[in-house]
Amino acid sequence: MELSDRSDIALLAQLATQLRADAIRASTAAGSGHPTSSMSAADLMAVLLTRHLRYDWEHPDHPDNDHFILSKGHASPLLYAAFKAAGVITDTELMTGYRRFGCRLQGHPTPVLPWVDVASGSLGQGIANGVGVALAGKFLDMSPFHVWALCGDSEMAEGSVWEALDKAGYYGLANFTVIVDVNRLGQRGPTELGWDLATYTKRVEAFGARAITVDGHHLEDIDGALTAARQTTQPTVILAKTIKGRGFSEVEDQEGWHGKAFPPETARRALAELGDIGGLTVTGPKPAPRQCPSPESGGTQTNDAPPRPRYKLGEKVATRAAYGAAVVALGAANPRVVALDGEVSNSTGAAEFAQEHPDRYFEMFIAEQQLVASAVGLHVRHYIPFASTFAAFFTRAHDFIRMAAVSRADICLVGSHAGVEIGADGPSQMALEDLAMMRSIHGATVLYPSDGTSAVAMVDLMAEAEGIRYLRTTRGAYPVLYEPATTFTVGGSHTLQSSSADRVTLIGAGVTVHQCLAAADSLRRSGIAARVIDAYSIKPVDRNTLLTAVRDTGGRLVVAEDHHPEGGLGSAVLEAICGPDTPPLRFVHLAVRTMPGSGTPAELLAAAGIDAASIDSAARRLLQGGDGQSDGQDAQPTSHAHLSGEQPNRMEKS
Amino acid sequence: MELSDRSDIALLAQLATQLRADAIRASTAAGSGHPTSSMSAADLMAVLLTRHLRYDWEHPDHPDNDHFILSKGHASPLLYAAFKAAGVITDTELMTGYRRFGCRLQGHPTPVLPWVDVASGSLGQGIANGVGVALAGKFLDMSPFHVWALCGDSEMAEGSVWEALDKAGYYGLANFTVIVDVNRLGQRGPTELGWDLATYTKRVEAFGARAITVDGHHLEDIDGALTAARQTTQPTVILAKTIKGRGFSEVEDQEGWHGKAFPPETARRALAELGDIGGLTVTGPKPAPRQCPSPESGGTQTNDAPPRPRYKLGEKVATRAAYGAAVVALGAANPRVVALDGEVSNSTGAAEFAQEHPDRYFEMFIAEQQLVASAVGLHVRHYIPFASTFAAFFTRAHDFIRMAAVSRADICLVGSHAGVEIGADGPSQMALEDLAMMRSIHGATVLYPSDGTSAVAMVDLMAEAEGIRYLRTTRGAYPVLYEPATTFTVGGSHTLQSSSADRVTLIGAGVTVHQCLAAADSLRRSGIAARVIDAYSIKPVDRNTLLTAVRDTGGRLVVAEDHHPEGGLGSAVLEAICGPDTPPLRFVHLAVRTMPGSGTPAELLAAAGIDAASIDSAARRLLQGGDGQSDGQDAQPTSHAHLSGEQPNRMEKS
Repeated sequence: MELSDRSDIALLAQLATQLRADAIRASTAAGSGHPTSSMSAADLMAVLLTRHLRYDWEHPDHPDNDHFILSKGHASPLLYAAFKAAGVITDTELMTGYRRFGCRLQGHPTPVLPWVDVASGSLGQGIANGVGVALAGKFLDMSPFHVWALCGDSEMAEGSVWEALDKAGYYGLANFTVIVDVNRLGQRGPTELGWDLATYTKRVEAFGARAITVDGHHLEDIDGALTAARQTTQPTVILAKTIKGRGFSEVEDQEGWHGKAFPPETARRALAELGDIGGLTVTGPKPAPRQCPSPESGGTQTNDAPPRPRYKLGEKVATRAAYGAAVVALGAANPRVVALDGEVSNSTGAAEFAQEHPDRYFEMFIAEQQLVASAVGLHVRHYIPFASTFAAFFTRAHDFIRMAAVSRADICLVGSHAGVEIGADGPSQMALEDLAMMRSIHGATVLYPSDGTSAVAMVDLMAEAEGIRYLRTTRGAYPVLYEPATTFTVGGSHTLQSSSADRVTLIGAGVTVHQCLAAADSLRRSGIAARVIDAYSIKPVDRNTLLTAVRDTGGRLVVAEDHHPEGGLGSAVLEAICGPDTPPLRFVHLAVRTMPGSGTPAELLAAAGIDAASIDSAARRLLQGGDGQSDGQDAQPTSHAHLSGEQPNRMEKS
Repeated sequence: MELSDRSDIALLAQLATQLRADAIRASTAAGSGHPTSSMSAADLMAVLLTRHLRYDWEHPDHPDNDHFILSKGHASPLLYAAFKAAGVITDTELMTGYRRFGCRLQGHPTPVLPWVDVASGSLGQGIANGVGVALAGKFLDMSPFHVWALCGDSEMAEGSVWEALDKAGYYGLANFTVIVDVNRLGQRGPTELGWDLATYTKRVEAFGARAITVDGHHLEDIDGALTAARQTTQPTVILAKTIKGRGFSEVEDQEGWHGKAFPPETARRALAELGDIGGLTVTGPKPAPRQCPSPESGGTQTNDAPPRPRYKLGEKVATRAAYGAAVVALGAANPRVVALDGEVSNSTGAAEFAQEHPDRYFEMFIAEQQLVASAVGLHVRHYIPFASTFAAFFTRAHDFIRMAAVSRADICLVGSHAGVEIGADGPSQMALEDLAMMRSIHGATVLYPSDGTSAVAMVDLMAEAEGIRYLRTTRGAYPVLYEPATTFTVGGSHTLQSSSADRVTLIGAGVTVHQCLAAADSLRRSGIAARVIDAYSIKPVDRNTLLTAVRDTGGRLVVAEDHHPEGGLGSAVLEAICGPDTPPLRFVHLAVRTMPGSGTPAELLAAAGIDAASIDSAARRLLQGGDGQSDGQDAQPTSHAHLSGEQPNRMEKS
């Protein structure tokens, strides 16, 4: 039988039963999964799917499709059962593909499936991503689509849920509806609020949403609530009182059944009690045809875009300021570029974008989780989001960044005020872990400009790259090192000084590039030729240039980074160099090894041992120590050029 | 003049003026800082300090001292001005030490100062830590102390604030008062809610606290609110309407003055307008003498503590289960051990502690930020907190862990379900970034047991270590490798197989130790002797044992880890080995390089290339490839022992 939005609502009970039965069958077949968490929400799903979700299942990319996000990702059996009812997966796939190796019906949904916008499974994130999608729909796409997020009640304990509702209220996202499956039971027992819908209501309303309470197993009431959800000027939260395991009396409202597939015999009893229906398909509502073309099909380049900022060599520019100027220019050239910030836009550079392109700027206030989640939601609608805050505070959103990678999201993150270089504000504001965090994200690109020119170029690189892209910017202003026409590439580097006489390689990124250059100068005054590499692409790192430098300079490398010693540039260099044929290596790693305090940037760089003097000393130690013979030889000045102070080659491109 | 809690409240206006003046003077002298954010809260601070904060300034460790946490850490000039008024720092220190290199009056407060419990500066964290301190006071110390947190209004946008208030309400923390300095202006402009105290009130009340609104510049009203704060059964949130820059008409309620020290001439005008008082000191109330000795002075070992769990060699035990059993035993032996969990205690092992020691277990529900923040608060009261959740979800609390290190907190974190080994649940539940994150935390200890025995031993190690300690546990059950009496050390490792004929070293941790052992077995059947190292201490890593292995096995290392390739065990090994005298190295790093899906643990370990077969192949490739001569030599079986399948030495201790 085929159900449509014109079907009698009584028929939906049959669909709900089928969804429950399929959730049980799939999880029992897989031997794991969350049937009871699916069963509590089956009636909600049946009504939504049949009568409210305007979705063209044959065209998941239809710009006016509604968006459904399963924030309670563990209820994947319910989602996949719905996909089966919608006719886009077969019963065979459901029964043999769920949670199996190499199959797309994973334990928690991911966008491997074309009908899934974002990965879920880390609770409190789907709702947050949904806010981003709704922002795009209301302010950028001008599309009538509606965003539905199905949440669990346990996840309402996550602060990120309240960041999300706060922003939904602030931006008046009437196109956003959260359905909370209040089944009273979490993983290990009762939730904090149980069935206290009154408290949920107070919280939801206080955060700017309309609350509607409903019996989550009463189909007519659900239908009424979902109908009302579109008729509002506010976001809506439907608080549905449900029973975990609903439909199978043995487990209904019982503890101890979370995340457990029913054993086959139990499943048999459950299906018998449900009175397995099967065979229902659903033709739900479709998005209405547009009267005019969707603005989102545009996205053309503007011809009169302002030129990218250009800086003169030696001019002092903070890379965070260069970021601001560059993203403004990028935004002028590409109308799909959007910016967001966490209430520090005057520090990160994003304020310029807010000024120039206010229609494409979203203030997230001090809510870094929502900052990243909104970016992911904007990505779902094919925008190119640049989200910025202090680099240190992206750690607040680490779980969201991790999940964004699982979501295959293409987002640009820009963290300012990196490292001890920030000076007097002290360690709470110093990102000293961000490179380790961002490098460990699957598929991430990590860039760290040393000057204004490279920062500008990297903003363009970010817009074109895929996956999670991170730009680390610096508080202070430093001399421009590169001509405006210089090319930068993901995975590249620039060798700023080199000669055939180089005896040691100094590797820096960002602020330490300047320290390396100064160290090379002082070494040169002692007749020691040093190669200087700006390893601006931290991930991927330029392995070939590093290996060449190792070979050319007797294996001597000094890496200096404004970051803790674990997982940052030093690790990237070692991971690149060390392999089955690791070349002979004499390695010094200068990094921030003690807890910094306040001070001037110069004091703190010196105290951390990552300033020019420290790099100089490390290079000399490398040349003095070690195996004697080659060092004795190397310690002699090898070319007149260096003795006379002539500048060695600068700016070899790689 | 000396003010006391018996002084006329009108005199407090003079103190407030002095606090404002000192905040201005200190920040202008330093050339940076946040005077206007200090000025808005000066009246609140004056009343609190003089009449409500029961604090023995000469004995900051007094067990019944109230606790004051400056959640809006950027208002440090106000805090330090208060310390001066309390007589614990001098005007000279304030004027010459604020934000200076090597000085303790840092840009944002840290526990370098004896009167500071926790570092702040990452917003929305002080309030969260305060909940932990209040939990200790109410449920463990049974102390009458009160916890006061001064928050900014901008930080109310952080979800963590609502996690904190939710837990404060849930646990009925009447000993906890939050004072919100609603000065309407954030860093870059107006806050989201401005002076909308009604909305703040609704939110606060919905989350279970009593809200009191007050004019934050009306001393009597403030005094009344702070008096009322102690007379309740609920946590209290005082919403104080204030004016940023209050007291200096040029900047009052003006944008553009956040985080800016006044230039000297401006400061002169400000001080003139304030009518600088100076010279006031405060003798506030002291904690009341106890009728009976504080329970917290106890902390004696229980003599009839149950023995630590013991496992038989070969018995299959999940390290997460061993954690649960071990922390129960530790808790029985040491009454200062406390456990917390994020609503997954039946998965992490913490449920056993909740069962055995319910008076020392705190359920944090699904709120990982508050989970860590509570642990930090319990540390402030000298408890030994063990906080557990899925390892993947500690990324949610990364910023809190980072700040806990700045706070010099001694806390134990236990992350279960690490890596692809978890199987069918899929990537959202797989910690593949946690080692990189935890290693990058300053001073952290990172341990990763491979079996039940080592997990038990490491729980003891964690209790004795300092700083942030992280235990990574595994979902599945694996054979016990170690006798119960085996010794484990922070910074140690165990060489599970070795002989003088070893030609390659296999390094694993956790689940990959078992894969390395299986690979060594299959290699041995081909006459290849392999050393196997259980690198259970990921940070610090056992450098000496690694260097010995490099030397003994021709530089050939295969590292296998259930983690992304960046920043984890492989990085730790390279960082340890590579230095000014890096030995010849032939290195293969097996890690999770593609995005995993669902599957069985065996399928996923194989797909990631970190199972025994992959390790075996990598070792053979290392022995076949490379520089020819030595490999040709090595490729011959070197001892009869290996050909005959005799077991090489197992269990060398290092």
